[in-house]
Amino acid sequence: MKIKLATIGVGNNTSALVQGLALYRATGSAVGIRRPEIAGLGVTDVEIVAAFAMSEAKVGADLSEAVLMPPNNFRLDVALEPSGVTVTRGLSTVDEVDRIAAALGGAEVVLYSAPSGRPEIARAYAEAALRAGAAFVNTTADAVARDPELLRRFTEAGLPLLGDDLTSQFGASAVHATLLRLLEERGVTLTSSYQVNLGGTEDFRNLVEHGESKKKSKMNALGANAGKVAVAPLGYMPHLGSRKILHLNIEAQGWGGAEIAMDLKLKVHDPAGAAGVNIDLVRLAAAAKREGRGGYPGEVADLMKSPPGTAI
Amino acid sequence: MKIKLATIGVGNNTSALVQGLALYRATGSAVGIRRPEIAGLGVTDVEIVAAFAMSEAKVGADLSEAVLMPPNNFRLDVALEPSGVTVTRGLSTVDEVDRIAAALGGAEVVLYSAPSGRPEIARAYAEAALRAGAAFVNTTADAVARDPELLRRFTEAGLPLLGDDLTSQFGASAVHATLLRLLEERGVTLTSSYQVNLGGTEDFRNLVEHGESKKKSKMNALGANAGKVAVAPLGYMPHLGSRKILHLNIEAQGWGGAEIAMDLKLKVHDPAGAAGVNIDLVRLAAAAKREGRGGYPGEVADLMKSPPGTAI
Amino acid sequence: MKIKLATIGVGNNTSALVQGLALYRATGSAVGIRRPEIAGLGVTDVEIVAAFAMSEAKVGADLSEAVLMPPNNFRLDVALEPSGVTVTRGLSTVDEVDRIAAALGGAEVVLYSAPSGRPEIARAYAEAALRAGAAFVNTTADAVARDPELLRRFTEAGLPLLGDDLTSQFGASAVHATLLRLLEERGVTLTSSYQVNLGGTEDFRNLVEHGESKKKSKMNALGANAGKVAVAPLGYMPHLGSRKILHLNIEAQGWGGAEIAMDLKLKVHDPAGAAGVNIDLVRLAAAAKREGRGGYPGEVADLMKSPPGTAI
Amino acid sequence: MKIKLATIGVGNNTSALVQGLALYRATGSAVGIRRPEIAGLGVTDVEIVAAFAMSEAKVGADLSEAVLMPPNNFRLDVALEPSGVTVTRGLSTVDEVDRIAAALGGAEVVLYSAPSGRPEIARAYAEAALRAGAAFVNTTADAVARDPELLRRFTEAGLPLLGDDLTSQFGASAVHATLLRLLEERGVTLTSSYQVNLGGTEDFRNLVEHGESKKKSKMNALGANAGKVAVAPLGYMPHLGSRKILHLNIEAQGWGGAEIAMDLKLKVHDPAGAAGVNIDLVRLAAAAKREGRGGYPGEVADLMKSPPGTAI
Repeated sequence: MKIKLATIGVGNNTSALVQGLALYRATGSAVGIRRPEIAGLGVTDVEIVAAFAMSEAKVGADLSEAVLMPPNNFRLDVALEPSGVTVTRGLSTVDEVDRIAAALGGAEVVLYSAPSGRPEIARAYAEAALRAGAAFVNTTADAVARDPELLRRFTEAGLPLLGDDLTSQFGASAVHATLLRLLEERGVTLTSSYQVNLGGTEDFRNLVEHGESKKKSKMNALGANAGKVAVAPLGYMPHLGSRKILHLNIEAQGWGGAEIAMDLKLKVHDPAGAAGVNIDLVRLAAAAKREGRGGYPGEVADLMKSPPGTAI
Repeated sequence: MKIKLATIGVGNNTSALVQGLALYRATGSAVGIRRPEIAGLGVTDVEIVAAFAMSEAKVGADLSEAVLMPPNNFRLDVALEPSGVTVTRGLSTVDEVDRIAAALGGAEVVLYSAPSGRPEIARAYAEAALRAGAAFVNTTADAVARDPELLRRFTEAGLPLLGDDLTSQFGASAVHATLLRLLEERGVTLTSSYQVNLGGTEDFRNLVEHGESKKKSKMNALGANAGKVAVAPLGYMPHLGSRKILHLNIEAQGWGGAEIAMDLKLKVHDPAGAAGVNIDLVRLAAAAKREGRGGYPGEVADLMKSPPGTAI
Repeated sequence: MKIKLATIGVGNNTSALVQGLALYRATGSAVGIRRPEIAGLGVTDVEIVAAFAMSEAKVGADLSEAVLMPPNNFRLDVALEPSGVTVTRGLSTVDEVDRIAAALGGAEVVLYSAPSGRPEIARAYAEAALRAGAAFVNTTADAVARDPELLRRFTEAGLPLLGDDLTSQFGASAVHATLLRLLEERGVTLTSSYQVNLGGTEDFRNLVEHGESKKKSKMNALGANAGKVAVAPLGYMPHLGSRKILHLNIEAQGWGGAEIAMDLKLKVHDPAGAAGVNIDLVRLAAAAKREGRGGYPGEVADLMKSPPGTAI
Repeated sequence: MKIKLATIGVGNNTSALVQGLALYRATGSAVGIRRPEIAGLGVTDVEIVAAFAMSEAKVGADLSEAVLMPPNNFRLDVALEPSGVTVTRGLSTVDEVDRIAAALGGAEVVLYSAPSGRPEIARAYAEAALRAGAAFVNTTADAVARDPELLRRFTEAGLPLLGDDLTSQFGASAVHATLLRLLEERGVTLTSSYQVNLGGTEDFRNLVEHGESKKKSKMNALGANAGKVAVAPLGYMPHLGSRKILHLNIEAQGWGGAEIAMDLKLKVHDPAGAAGVNIDLVRLAAAAKREGRGGYPGEVADLMKSPPGTAI
């Protein structure tokens, strides 16, 4: 049975999800899909039934049109048919929780993909999901699954609560952590490391402006080596569009203190990296919900930078 | 009890081993050591009792002087005391096996670190080890442990035979394979990849001249992705000295076919990368021998590019 | 008045010229054009009247079709109309000079863009141009303009002879030489430098196989610093298609010997780099011819790696 | 005759000057020197006669000791003898101009190398130089030579005034501008470009905190292309010490719109880059003064990012 999904936020990440679903339906391609099946659910078993946004232009538009409106700038090689889903006005104060709950359209899963940096708003949407009996997936760095009281209530209600801060399908954190782990496995001693992230999306601009919580999340992802690792101020560069660029340096010492140096440049499209994980989170959330497992499902740990228990 | 070691070849790799042992003894440092203990044996429990070389200058010299003679060009930050070990003339025809066996000085382990590309010579040294009752470690790409008949004889004699072609402690193959594995884990589809290796040692010059067997070894290490991966001709550049440089590119596709690109430059000192693994191979060989386990010890699989059973 | 041009070779470079001319005619764009006018001649004033190739498939085909046939793999974003020019069989022995001369179709300029490495063939085409009264442009590394006797005969005939070995509009040599010159201007002392070139065209494969003359040409381009500069073996990688990749490293010392290091990766499409210069060479040749200036016109010096007088 | 020099600021840049002078005197080396002679004056003809600093530790110390005190972290391979110059307390309010003028020790040239971002202080030192009859060199981004009234008074007094904001001997601006100029010369159309600068000195930290005026200076240096060029927020990373790192990207289009891409990483020691230019500015200032040429000497234009007339 298809998964009914409501998306909060109609930015580039939601756009990448919508466009990717259309492309996979049209072509049957399996390129770039991490898990073809989760609990019997394929990628194209996800169906969007409601979407929420704040932009005047997007509210009232068909979702297929809204996902391509500026400032969204991510494009896949696919044409979108009308979706039949009209974008609903999102929540601007916590008093509107009931309105949102009523507008979720019977969704099993609510995917929170709004800009980071407004934790009260994020938790209000989670509240709406709870009232409507839906699982909630927080992809932002705001503390939602890390809020012990909220997690307790989802657990008691038998509803899954997934979060916080998705690890991109393939991005700076994964590559950096993997290389640092390789050093460690090989007995190479880290001297210093830095990463510089550049991006051109609105989400990225938002990160630059609310940089601190994001930086903390990145450090959680880097683990024990954090003391020797510098994460430079993020650089917002509009001309990059939906691309994100990482410059990574690692200096280390091998046998007898011999020098080892590594420089890496990574180019990704951040919205695709988010959608490639969101498609798994949504299916994991639906599967847990259908099995009656409330709270934080352990199997998503690898997909989250700041799971319950990490620093807020 | 200390491990008595004979080294075949007094090139940069042996030099890195000798210098590193001196440095760790002098400083007590643990920088760059992969496994502080193997079966109770520390890094400084390895003692060199015999060494073999072909160069007129090195034969007859104290090992501490010989390791610093040209064309060797690897240097650690340590001064070497006289070792008391005089370098013996190595084997130039297979008729000299008995002379070598007699000169091994009671070594438990024979470490073969001569230039790649002369498989008969490599196997003659293994024969000498067998006759002298020593374990044998082949660090070159020549087929020794992959020779089924030789492996059978070591197994029957209760003597360990480790090989072939050591995986550097930290080098091109490890980084490349790790990043390709990360792509795979994340469901990112590889489009193409290349690596270009540049180096300045005599060992490297030798590789360039006997490039084919080395290239095959590299491909064994890259596994299933080999079809999409190009390894460029190796470039010998004397000015690099003991440094080795890798230029690595990976092009791939994520969610919806979105482009992912990675460029990496890695600088290492190859002799240190070899010594950092040789110190483990020697201890693993000694431990297996002391436990009476002949043949190929499975626990070294990660340290070898072309273990028994892979293509010759 | 339009320039009548004959092209020898219907490979990627000729394809880039043909496609570029079509694109500029169709769009009026000026992107990527170095000199909008040369002696009153615009880019689109060049008209191809004859073309020669060796491939069975290309001979007899319309030039617009032939330029897109494999192994050609360079593509611009333009559709080609039929050209009306049928590709003629090229010269395979020096006895065919008269046949070629007769088939040049009244061309004012003959552009030699065949694979490097066959100097006799190159000079035979130059001979044909001479007999037909056309200017000759040698874009390959073969010695044509560097042949003093040939140059003397062109000069006496009042026909321009341009060569040898075009400097790409923007490529490895330009970037490398520019950075080395900057070091020198700034009083920074070069320690060492290397370049590694990778490519995927047939022309590039040909270079790899006839690497020596090319390497000499590169060294001519690098000038006085050549002693400290290493050019690695070229790497042919079919998956690169028409792209060419340069990895460049420069190590130097500034004030007080302080270390300076630079690493650069450059990606270009080689056929576009050739066409962007050929369009200037053809106009310079035509202008010199129309002014009655025979021999080597000094104003092309910047566009040639190995002008008359440099080593053969 | 030797040049008597007073330095304002005893940070890394002054340290690099002092250490470099000692090294060149001791070794006779010419490595990394841009202009061996200026108006007959060699590098070692510069003699420091007075130095000013604000740090409690440095004031009262011998200059040779003071230049090595933290947070200074730049080191050349040379030992420093006592200089005989005791560091004087610098100016903290503009009322102290006369005290400074009196303490200049008969200097012909005053080199202003204090942190950027305090234009009133910078101009007060210039005032002191004017009163003492010395030439003034402003190496910071603060507007001094760009102050028309101050420039007029130096001109009338027959005293040279050099500034503002030195262009490093070899750094981000030079490399970036050179590559952009090469694109232009070759008719390649710039699409976009970015530079990211990382550093670890106190000067660099100060720049990060007073980033705006510096960024303007950088843009002045990049000229007409500034609209397509993004300069990312500067990243202060203490572990870099005196190193400065540039990540540079250029995207462009060649013939027919074909893509060209360049990525460059540059590592320099910023203090050496400053000292290598300061040694020329000091000699140019002395030469102009000795020739009685007051005001801004045109011959320093290449050494200044924001000469008189550029935006403040």
